Amino acid sequence: MEPEGPPNNTLESPTLEEAYRRVRWGTSRYKTVIVVGRCRVDYDGRASSKLEPGERILLIKPDGSALVHRPRDYAPVNWQPPGSLFRTKLEKGRLLVRIFRRKENEVIEVRFSDIALVAVLDLRDTGAFHLYASEKDMQQAILVEPSLIEKGFRPITTERPVEPGFIDILGVDSENTLTVVEIKRNAATREAVLQLQKYIDVLKTEEGRKIRGILVAPELARGAQKLLASLRLEFKQLSPQRCAQVLKRLKETPLTDFFGM
Amino acid sequence: MEPEGPPNNTLESPTLEEAYRRVRWGTSRYKTVIVVGRCRVDYDGRASSKLEPGERILLIKPDGSALVHRPRDYAPVNWQPPGSLFRTKLEKGRLLVRIFRRKENEVIEVRFSDIALVAVLDLRDTGAFHLYASEKDMQQAILVEPSLIEKGFRPITTERPVEPGFIDILGVDSENTLTVVEIKRNAATREAVLQLQKYIDVLKTEEGRKIRGILVAPELARGAQKLLASLRLEFKQLSPQRCAQVLKRLKETPLTDFFGM
Repeated sequence: MEPEGPPNNTLESPTLEEAYRRVRWGTSRYKTVIVVGRCRVDYDGRASSKLEPGERILLIKPDGSALVHRPRDYAPVNWQPPGSLFRTKLEKGRLLVRIFRRKENEVIEVRFSDIALVAVLDLRDTGAFHLYASEKDMQQAILVEPSLIEKGFRPITTERPVEPGFIDILGVDSENTLTVVEIKRNAATREAVLQLQKYIDVLKTEEGRKIRGILVAPELARGAQKLLASLRLEFKQLSPQRCAQVLKRLKETPLTDFFGM
Repeated sequence: MEPEGPPNNTLESPTLEEAYRRVRWGTSRYKTVIVVGRCRVDYDGRASSKLEPGERILLIKPDGSALVHRPRDYAPVNWQPPGSLFRTKLEKGRLLVRIFRRKENEVIEVRFSDIALVAVLDLRDTGAFHLYASEKDMQQAILVEPSLIEKGFRPITTERPVEPGFIDILGVDSENTLTVVEIKRNAATREAVLQLQKYIDVLKTEEGRKIRGILVAPELARGAQKLLASLRLEFKQLSPQRCAQVLKRLKETPLTDFFGM
């Protein structure tokens, strides 16, 4: 006898028998299933682990991935990637949920003695995920594709220490003029302009020659444009998104293409 | 007005107002809180991301960690480590849960437009977690501390390819006799004994000298002992747990101790 009830129904403090039916119903129909209760967890595969009894959350997803979460830490204590199979059974006063990958011979066994909650969920999620690059990613993208700054730009070094901090990228332009590049992933403020100017002041003392300063950011914040112009510094519009695309393309390019093989 | 009801109560398809009260009640009392519903998620910090609307699970833990899970993949799409702070508010037909780390300037904003489930849970979990080493870990432990095999043992190389596979560790004993070490993390079977013998047969042909074979495992499976003796191979009892301890101690030892600084 399988309960057919609406998939979004939750059971609070069900018996093991009720929980068993509901979990089996959910996993066999590729639903998202949440089981909260007191359990022990055994893992065996490349390594092995034992988690002594306590109250945890088991999250099972339609793609066959599964996670066991303790009420602390952001990482799950045990998990399986997509493609895992589930078997549920009642044994000796326990509800056993077995999560296994046959080919890899990896098995997690969760044995519940008490259950606080079973939720079977029918989640629809097609929303796109957009990840925008960090300043470190932007630096990386410029090193891979220096023309993001301008034609003929060649990076020399990164993170060069100068008194107030580290220069993001130090390079030369097509006429061999030393060029300091300061990167911001948000609108560059007056503070960013002053920071760039400080680096140039220190370097000028050391080098005694003309130095260009380029502030790289998706946009300039209010007031930054005027200061930039008065200090004869330059602005290069570059978005984290654009940099993310460069890095993505890089990952997709076989390494052999770089070595002309 | 704060609902005081038992902490293990769940709300199914609550209004945003009801959900708001319950989530605030739970987070302010350091409970584990699960919110399931249609939401969008914005992250801003070292990088930034936007997740367009869809149905997801938000898991909030008493230690201030939080995860957003889509109904696929074992990794959360967004997360914050322990120590994060939570602010909940109703705005323009949305329930906003703000998860932030002030010092690091990292913010996740989850905006729910519809809520399927809110569960506030009082989870008690003091169960110990034991992780036992993999064969790779055991190999590593022996390289770090070769006396786990025997006094005077010196590893030469690992993963040496021989016809049927790769030798776990090839070394020499205190009398400079070439020694093949085969590692098993479970009871070593007859198949493991035969595998070790094959490696030795191949090496003998190449080297033309006496070779020792040592099978390393927590125990011998039934029938393996007799076969081992008849082939004049040796058994060294070593458990994954013991190896895990060696590696743990290694991690805790400052590197300077190794370089005599």
